[in-house]
Amino acid sequence: MGRWEPGASSRLREAALALYLERGFEQTMVADIAERAGVTARTFFRYFADKREVFFDASAELEEKSLAALEAAPATAPPLDAVAAALVAAAEVIGGNRELARVRQAVIMANASLRERELIKLTSMSVAVADGLRRRGVGNAEASLAAETGVAVFRVAFERWVNAAEDRALGDVIRETLAQLRTLTAAS
Amino acid sequence: MGRWEPGASSRLREAALALYLERGFEQTMVADIAERAGVTARTFFRYFADKREVFFDASAELEEKSLAALEAAPATAPPLDAVAAALVAAAEVIGGNRELARVRQAVIMANASLRERELIKLTSMSVAVADGLRRRGVGNAEASLAAETGVAVFRVAFERWVNAAEDRALGDVIRETLAQLRTLTAAS
Repeated sequence: MGRWEPGASSRLREAALALYLERGFEQTMVADIAERAGVTARTFFRYFADKREVFFDASAELEEKSLAALEAAPATAPPLDAVAAALVAAAEVIGGNRELARVRQAVIMANASLRERELIKLTSMSVAVADGLRRRGVGNAEASLAAETGVAVFRVAFERWVNAAEDRALGDVIRETLAQLRTLTAAS
Repeated sequence: MGRWEPGASSRLREAALALYLERGFEQTMVADIAERAGVTARTFFRYFADKREVFFDASAELEEKSLAALEAAPATAPPLDAVAAALVAAAEVIGGNRELARVRQAVIMANASLRERELIKLTSMSVAVADGLRRRGVGNAEASLAAETGVAVFRVAFERWVNAAEDRALGDVIRETLAQLRTLTAAS
């Protein structure tokens, strides 16, 4: 895929985000995105199923790397430590470019259908992590709870990281947020 | 509202759920629901904005009672204890009829647009609880984390309760799930 159009997918992604910010997501057509990226609409559809997919095409990689990290965690690791390893692996996929993440987040928050898709994506992540924990021998109820809690930590950490004035890595913010959760639950 | 149609709103709700189960949500029209409940479509729209609202019309009451419980928690209560009080108050609104909750859940899970609306509702609940915690003087970051964690506990507890073979109250399942979260976070 794409050998005939070097860099087309990242040019398309940048063009799409720029147009979504300038004109709004609803007002941007695939043809406009392709034009700005200097390719045809047909090339756009080689990389993305539709204009929403520009935001979510990393999901498969995200899930894959998270689950690999979950599996690689020591067999003796408590469930929440295994989940933490999965979250940090997810952070490595999406945490490389905070400016891009910030623009993406701004566009998603401004559009109800994108917000919904984001929530669905997080829910399916939670289901996948819970399944991964069950494969590690964690009990059914405990697996769901650890996965849901992990996603909650991830959401909070991601929002902090995206809006942060300083330059910590997303993985570090996740670890810090998890430590705060431990303090919160111990306090009460 | 509704003095001229005693019991119309609960008859409409029951008729709607029965039809959604029989025919599917998409295939059920407002006119069908009204007919089965023995009222006019106009009466339906006195109570519900559309056929999705049949599932979500308790949301306002849920949020109101949760926030009241949050405010009523002792000033010295740790954040997660205040959140627990809010969740148990929410359980009192929706935990009265498990059979109804089970049917509602089955229909929601079978329909993507209803699942999305449910997720949006839970997110807005989390935002409201976080705001409530800030009004109690809890720090910004800690408030979001406690609220997101609370919603995670609620989701897991609700699913357990809806599918449970035994007859515990939803509030008790919430308390138990929160205790399990403490064990999980302490373990690692």
